[in-house]
Amino acid sequence: MTPDATEMTQPRVKPRILSGFRDFLPQQMLVRQHIIGLFRDIFERHGYEPIETPVLEHLDVLTGKAGENERLMYHFTDQGGRRVGMRYDLTVPLARVLAMHQNEIVLPFKRYHIGPVWRAEKSQRGRFREFWQCDADIAGSTSMLADAEGVSIVTEAIAAVGISNFVVRINHRHLLGAIARAAGGPDANTGNIIRTIDRLDKIGPDKVEQQLVADGLDAVGASRLMSLITARGNPDAVLSDVLGQIGEVDGVRQATEDLTRLFDGLASLGVPAKRAILDLSLARGLDYYTGPVVEATVEQPAVGSIAGGGRYDGLVGSFSSRSMPATGVSLGIERIIEVVSEFNLLSVPGTTVQVFVAGYRDDVAGAARLATRLRDAGFRTDLSLLSDRSLGDQFKYAGRKGVQLAVFQSPDERAAGVTNIKDLLSGEQTQTLDDQLEATLRQRLVPAIQE
Amino acid sequence: MTPDATEMTQPRVKPRILSGFRDFLPQQMLVRQHIIGLFRDIFERHGYEPIETPVLEHLDVLTGKAGENERLMYHFTDQGGRRVGMRYDLTVPLARVLAMHQNEIVLPFKRYHIGPVWRAEKSQRGRFREFWQCDADIAGSTSMLADAEGVSIVTEAIAAVGISNFVVRINHRHLLGAIARAAGGPDANTGNIIRTIDRLDKIGPDKVEQQLVADGLDAVGASRLMSLITARGNPDAVLSDVLGQIGEVDGVRQATEDLTRLFDGLASLGVPAKRAILDLSLARGLDYYTGPVVEATVEQPAVGSIAGGGRYDGLVGSFSSRSMPATGVSLGIERIIEVVSEFNLLSVPGTTVQVFVAGYRDDVAGAARLATRLRDAGFRTDLSLLSDRSLGDQFKYAGRKGVQLAVFQSPDERAAGVTNIKDLLSGEQTQTLDDQLEATLRQRLVPAIQE
Repeated sequence: MTPDATEMTQPRVKPRILSGFRDFLPQQMLVRQHIIGLFRDIFERHGYEPIETPVLEHLDVLTGKAGENERLMYHFTDQGGRRVGMRYDLTVPLARVLAMHQNEIVLPFKRYHIGPVWRAEKSQRGRFREFWQCDADIAGSTSMLADAEGVSIVTEAIAAVGISNFVVRINHRHLLGAIARAAGGPDANTGNIIRTIDRLDKIGPDKVEQQLVADGLDAVGASRLMSLITARGNPDAVLSDVLGQIGEVDGVRQATEDLTRLFDGLASLGVPAKRAILDLSLARGLDYYTGPVVEATVEQPAVGSIAGGGRYDGLVGSFSSRSMPATGVSLGIERIIEVVSEFNLLSVPGTTVQVFVAGYRDDVAGAARLATRLRDAGFRTDLSLLSDRSLGDQFKYAGRKGVQLAVFQSPDERAAGVTNIKDLLSGEQTQTLDDQLEATLRQRLVPAIQE
Repeated sequence: MTPDATEMTQPRVKPRILSGFRDFLPQQMLVRQHIIGLFRDIFERHGYEPIETPVLEHLDVLTGKAGENERLMYHFTDQGGRRVGMRYDLTVPLARVLAMHQNEIVLPFKRYHIGPVWRAEKSQRGRFREFWQCDADIAGSTSMLADAEGVSIVTEAIAAVGISNFVVRINHRHLLGAIARAAGGPDANTGNIIRTIDRLDKIGPDKVEQQLVADGLDAVGASRLMSLITARGNPDAVLSDVLGQIGEVDGVRQATEDLTRLFDGLASLGVPAKRAILDLSLARGLDYYTGPVVEATVEQPAVGSIAGGGRYDGLVGSFSSRSMPATGVSLGIERIIEVVSEFNLLSVPGTTVQVFVAGYRDDVAGAARLATRLRDAGFRTDLSLLSDRSLGDQFKYAGRKGVQLAVFQSPDERAAGVTNIKDLLSGEQTQTLDDQLEATLRQRLVPAIQE
């Protein structure tokens, strides 16, 4: 105990965390890092590259044209009198970066960004005020292959975390609007109709059809709309049916062409047909979408939407006189981590430590030299700081941390060239010759801890 | 051009970034990620495990006892009327976590934390308002081996980024105070004397000695102090000299014992003696240090301090009635990244992409299938979105991004089972049989891009 420490035995501040915010201790961090690592690998294998942007931005950059998100944002006036806010997504900062760094960025630009965002919302179970987003976008291309790449990333990422029963639903923003207009006539409230359609999953087709009539559609129009948005099966067949029915409505021809190209791209990229389906009822909320929209839903376990995205050709233009097409997807990483943890889909060890070096009585130096040797050989090695305690106490400590293997050596054993290895999972203890120590440890480590 | 995009040809918001904040485009990100990856590996090889804490905290948690750092902090009142601040370091949040999660955390607890912090300071060249810190700490151990582990991590981390001419200076907080008191007598202003000593590097020994006299020391005391703080050489010899001269001053015996154990630990951990020296002039600013303090300085190139740390046994006690010893180091990662970039110490490729698949005329499907095959084989593959352009234009695009290899295949070549490989660095173009494509690409990739 140092003099300074004793001065402070009365706590001055109650340790507490803001509601809606979380600490991640090692065990949770390892799951998060593992999943983030998988996603980063997939992004990079698809040619996307990382960027990072500040947490704080000028408030008007974040709120954009209408200031509509200000209510959900942490914002304040900084010491220099500037109105600033904490980013609430990673898409608006991307648009700002594209507009500002036009001369440094080679288009088409494929970037991923994995990081926290903040929303000053009411916190509740499963919804946080600080949470991570995980986005992959392509700017500067109108090609539907860019949209297809996004879907292909989503299917690979979801499969990589061990979720097997999912589907990516695909629609086109202009198609949904056209269907609503075609069914309701020019005077119908298209916005209301789309919001009603958006509730299909929640309230079922019968209630949606009733509500459409309440929204002002006649029975024939409502029934015709229902048959369009609930159509399933081969995308080409459904799209040609749509063309036949409402092909003359403004925007429909272009939208069906886009979707045909998108599904062709998916086939070339090897996305299985059962993983990516056309769903003309898919709405998605964000009003900046201008083309295809996608959403991944897990069916078993029924955990709902875990990824989404779409094309937003207008957003960059809100920062620049030069407009720029863009499309992207966002993996709902917090939801995915929750599902992976709850259903134990991935085997992630609870500690990064592979080997614990126990101290034999007061032989601190011997244990330290042994730990250094193992570290130099690449083992993630924890050196005991409890060598004044019994070996049993030290093993208990390492076991509580979840470490699999402990090693130790008495001075006599060192002289004889042998080391003890104790498996803290099985309790088994063996000896190995010093020159076979590294090889023996590698052999003994269970696969999940080996990497 | 979609209808929504044309609506927005006039920019509504000027795209700009807050002063003192930075965007990281892929080329910079790859250097940052590479260095962070090296440090994470070193931390984990030493048995440290990751944690993360929120960016926002209750303001009184961050300002602690005296509220002394509030001036440097971004703080505001949130929508719920709470006084909150953005974290300005990673040490105070660690202390809060240790106090809050006492029942979940196994002590001693070795954690690392790599992430951004914010300071509302005047921004200037090389100093940012948002910057990363990279900390490794051990809580719950009074052992000097814990302090030695910190120094060993610092020396490994600096060497890992290719900096070869550096030294870690080590002192003890109680020793410096005792030397000042011994030289100046009980009435001297110890604080002033320590601040004067702290300027030794900047103003040299002669000016320090003059200033010490101005601080109130007599000539004999000043000269005696100078000979102590400028002593170099074998730590044991210097420490026994200190004991001989001021061994009876309060705290000196314990401090020299601590340092002897610390240097013994360094030897056992394989830290070369020339990398870790005793320097009784080292002060370091933070007033929460209570034991050994360390600081790493690069001598050639003369870039100054790039890492530091020490023991702070009192900090956790400010949150908890149960006091807890702690010690740690912080790698000055922003400064290190700057030095590595400026002196080109590490060879980090400018892109993660290994292979670019060009589209042959309108054969989008063929190129997509080829890209999928390479991705499945583990290559980081960019699929061309410019297949309506000439091959030359597509190669130019990939070359500007820094990609080394491009591949393409005409439908005839595909039928014949051959693929073209173009090295965009050398300009050389060759053909390979399809079944040897992956092996040939692996062979051709330059080592820095291979991993």
